[in-house]
Amino acid sequence: MAKYMDMDTLRFLLFECHEVQKLLEAPRYADFDQDALNILLDSFKDFADKELYPYFREMDEQAAYYKDGKVIVHPQLEVVLKKMAELGLIGANYDHEDGGMQIPESIFYSLSHIMDSANNNVTGYPSLTTGSGRLIVTFGSQELKDTYVPKMIAGEWGGTMCLTEPQAGSSLSDITSSAIPTEDGYYKISGQKIFISGGDHEYCSNFVHLFLARIDGAPAGTRGISLFVVPKFRPTADGGLEDNDVFTAADFPKLGQKGYVTTHLVFGEKENCRGWLVGEPNRGLKYMFQMMNEARISVGVGALSIATAAYYASLQYAKERPQGRRLSDTGTKNVEADQTLIINHPDVRRMLLLQKAVIEGSLSLAVESAKYSDLVHVTEGEEHDEHLLMLEILTPICKTYPSEMGRVSISNGLQVLGGYGFTSDFVLQQYYRDIRITSLYEGTTGIQSLDLLGRKVTMKNGAALKLLAAKMQESIMAAMAYKELKPYAMDLGEKLKLAQKVIGHLLQFAAQGKFERFTADATVFMDFFSNITIAWQWLKMATSASKALSDNTGTQKAEFYQAKIHTMKFYYKYELPKTLSAAYTLVAEDELTIQKEEEILF
Amino acid sequence: MAKYMDMDTLRFLLFECHEVQKLLEAPRYADFDQDALNILLDSFKDFADKELYPYFREMDEQAAYYKDGKVIVHPQLEVVLKKMAELGLIGANYDHEDGGMQIPESIFYSLSHIMDSANNNVTGYPSLTTGSGRLIVTFGSQELKDTYVPKMIAGEWGGTMCLTEPQAGSSLSDITSSAIPTEDGYYKISGQKIFISGGDHEYCSNFVHLFLARIDGAPAGTRGISLFVVPKFRPTADGGLEDNDVFTAADFPKLGQKGYVTTHLVFGEKENCRGWLVGEPNRGLKYMFQMMNEARISVGVGALSIATAAYYASLQYAKERPQGRRLSDTGTKNVEADQTLIINHPDVRRMLLLQKAVIEGSLSLAVESAKYSDLVHVTEGEEHDEHLLMLEILTPICKTYPSEMGRVSISNGLQVLGGYGFTSDFVLQQYYRDIRITSLYEGTTGIQSLDLLGRKVTMKNGAALKLLAAKMQESIMAAMAYKELKPYAMDLGEKLKLAQKVIGHLLQFAAQGKFERFTADATVFMDFFSNITIAWQWLKMATSASKALSDNTGTQKAEFYQAKIHTMKFYYKYELPKTLSAAYTLVAEDELTIQKEEEILF
Repeated sequence: MAKYMDMDTLRFLLFECHEVQKLLEAPRYADFDQDALNILLDSFKDFADKELYPYFREMDEQAAYYKDGKVIVHPQLEVVLKKMAELGLIGANYDHEDGGMQIPESIFYSLSHIMDSANNNVTGYPSLTTGSGRLIVTFGSQELKDTYVPKMIAGEWGGTMCLTEPQAGSSLSDITSSAIPTEDGYYKISGQKIFISGGDHEYCSNFVHLFLARIDGAPAGTRGISLFVVPKFRPTADGGLEDNDVFTAADFPKLGQKGYVTTHLVFGEKENCRGWLVGEPNRGLKYMFQMMNEARISVGVGALSIATAAYYASLQYAKERPQGRRLSDTGTKNVEADQTLIINHPDVRRMLLLQKAVIEGSLSLAVESAKYSDLVHVTEGEEHDEHLLMLEILTPICKTYPSEMGRVSISNGLQVLGGYGFTSDFVLQQYYRDIRITSLYEGTTGIQSLDLLGRKVTMKNGAALKLLAAKMQESIMAAMAYKELKPYAMDLGEKLKLAQKVIGHLLQFAAQGKFERFTADATVFMDFFSNITIAWQWLKMATSASKALSDNTGTQKAEFYQAKIHTMKFYYKYELPKTLSAAYTLVAEDELTIQKEEEILF
Repeated sequence: MAKYMDMDTLRFLLFECHEVQKLLEAPRYADFDQDALNILLDSFKDFADKELYPYFREMDEQAAYYKDGKVIVHPQLEVVLKKMAELGLIGANYDHEDGGMQIPESIFYSLSHIMDSANNNVTGYPSLTTGSGRLIVTFGSQELKDTYVPKMIAGEWGGTMCLTEPQAGSSLSDITSSAIPTEDGYYKISGQKIFISGGDHEYCSNFVHLFLARIDGAPAGTRGISLFVVPKFRPTADGGLEDNDVFTAADFPKLGQKGYVTTHLVFGEKENCRGWLVGEPNRGLKYMFQMMNEARISVGVGALSIATAAYYASLQYAKERPQGRRLSDTGTKNVEADQTLIINHPDVRRMLLLQKAVIEGSLSLAVESAKYSDLVHVTEGEEHDEHLLMLEILTPICKTYPSEMGRVSISNGLQVLGGYGFTSDFVLQQYYRDIRITSLYEGTTGIQSLDLLGRKVTMKNGAALKLLAAKMQESIMAAMAYKELKPYAMDLGEKLKLAQKVIGHLLQFAAQGKFERFTADATVFMDFFSNITIAWQWLKMATSASKALSDNTGTQKAEFYQAKIHTMKFYYKYELPKTLSAAYTLVAEDELTIQKEEEILF
């Protein structure tokens, strides 16, 4: 079995760096201790080794497809859904009363990391079922819960999120699917939804679509959108199922994640499609967005996990492939000597270290963000509000950084293999294709960047930003205790000042009412600010590693911790300096991307 | 017909910015005037419109494959080879006496640009035939020329370059294919070659492999490598063909360029394979490398052309797709208004301008480099040597910048389409796959970077570098004449100083005999230095555009020139600042990628 993720690093992040075991003091998690969490992680890794990883390439080669109204997917999906339900892992993060295991989100995402690293073509099916079921348990009536959730967490029915429509895309204001109230309590539904992941296949006997639509007469824009449960087959009083006029019109063949079907669904073509309102009318998008942090962190975890598997694939190759020779001090190579392994060439090491820096930095941020999501559940008052602020500001970064830099990381991994990386004999080309969707899922990078700069940085008079800066400052102080880390801690301090300067500059535009100018370079700002955020995570990791080395409290070998410190240094030499150029761009005067009436640019 | 490249920009670069028509004063090009070149370009564009572009997606969907010893490719290849031979375009850059049209390289690459933009899955076949035939006409005996070249330029026989072997990869020192001299003038050949592009198919009746091997007893390393012509079928005295024991063992299915077959060839398995020495023994790699500049510029042109076609595909989408609304000065959006076209969103413009900046900057550099290649042909003495130095130092950049940044550019193009970009309904995903090979072909980015820093920067005591800096300084002075360009010209001057500082710093390591350290960050240096080189090209383009606008000498509309100046500004705001961070990395003290005995990093 090839290595596709590192359990030691995951455990280091959970229990040494971010100390999620402290969460377990809360009554909500009374069922668990650290040993129980470790057993859960290990048993899931075992499941992933046996049932997920071995099918990863097959699922790509035998892509999901649509034929005659049916969607055909790889048969291993049936096994996976059954076993995951048996292990209690669909809806594992729900409350006990809703049939869940009430596990912390930080552990739930850790399981996702294992799963996505093993086989990212499978994860979406159970994850979307968990996510859409969560909307029902959080906002739905008892009747909706009782009708749908037990079958969903049993893996028998699949769940989906039905947002996108052909004419609307990212612009949810323009959703036109309609819901007409009837006297019998249900709504008559009609509309078309595209890009619906896992929207149909033969291994679930029903699909439960969480569906955005406008109730007749609702206001324009996002304020007139409501959320419905629209099943493919509607449950009847006698426990049977009857057709609900939901039709799979097509699938979308695509660049990657070919094992994970993307469907085009048509609702109510025969005027016989019924939906049930979730919560109150016109609050649909609000409900969706309350789940959005989790969905976005999930995509980030997916991206970093694909990049993690790619890293280990390229690392294995680099450790086995001899080629060329190291340069001697005379600047020549001894052609009579044996070839060296390519891992010994500086440029190959640079590519491997970049990958390690990106994936572990991203995983650390994901664990920290998930921890805030847990803390939001188990705290109250000001403390709760602070954790929510942290979750809100970190989420767009948590989603975007691994999606963007994971792609760069995988391209480096492919490059490590030379020409072989481009061939289908090796798996790198699949990772290169699969990860490309993550910059588009759940809000594109452009949308995430607008969210970060236009909403999160400014919200509550910059409260989230101040809080984050204070946390970074704390980490800087903690790192200063270790002589080896001091220069890096000071470097991060400088970059934090730079960030404050850049943000101050940009906010002037908002203050002047130049909103388009304020956010015009939001994506560059994302690049800039997420770089600093990941540098912060690396400083935290290096501090934990230094602590473990100095007081012998660590559970890993010394080399493990030394490698973390080395990778932190790599990040600070090769990645963090990129903030200098981004800052230059962000404060430059030229306005070049805002449409002017007269110009013909392209 | 969708637009896939811009003839106006090509003409602007050839005749206004780089003035290649001045070459035509040389007796070598006496056959041509500017009109004749324009007619050639137009007629080739017409050919590409009809015979290349319409088959681009088909060639991907109906990938080349290997079965039972045969290679099956798309039947349009037969048409293309025939028509290209009729148009005289295979070997068009050969001398008249060798059956060529003696066209300038700058025009030959312009044709390649049209061809690669239209259909990069086809170009390799005629290009490799031209390139390998060129080795024969330049270094081969009259008998070899007479036997092989006429059939090659007639498109009847295909040519290949056989360098790579399974155990050697990028390390050509380790080639083991063998050649044993016989008394009959030929050599007995045996060995295996992998990654041989266009190595076999049914639309050529013979293949002429330019084959690297060691003659029995040759010295180890690259000094013992000789070049041979090894045909698939050997021509007999009576004009027939007999089997030469060259066997196609497999093809390599791959991520992209699926229409362009990559073969694994086995030579001399039945001990009946004959080869004919080209030139002198043990000089094979030298001959190859004399052609290498051209092969590398070709790959760069391929990369920028794939990115060009991707740009126009994403531009078309952006001009047609309505979605969302612009932000008003109150920071809100009017949801009652019609949606705007996505090209009006700043982030989409940024992505489009990045693409334009990368592709046109790369094309300008390719034209300039090709011009030096022509000048080398038609000048003598010191002048000739200077042109050769310029060609030598620009070549690795010309190959690498478009391969690396073209990939980034296409990823932006895909992003412009949102979720649709990931689907097979749109072509962006094909460009995203196709371009990935260009960082690997003809020397990986790592190899090119070692060539640039370790060889080209230092050669002849830095003569090439000094010359290039002087050319940049000339361009800066020329730009200073236009008020609008002054700040950008000064910026480039600053970056040139920064480059001199960085290079001075790195050379210390070479002086101290720390060669591994000297080139450890060669790839970062490539990134840094190629960025400055492209900024130089943009300043030249903006200067030509400003000239045309101010003295009305231009042949294009004012908007065309204004767009060039705008894109230059974009490059200087968004791309050139990245040199700041690269410079920081290059002079940073930490040594993190050089193998130390004790360390376990991964």
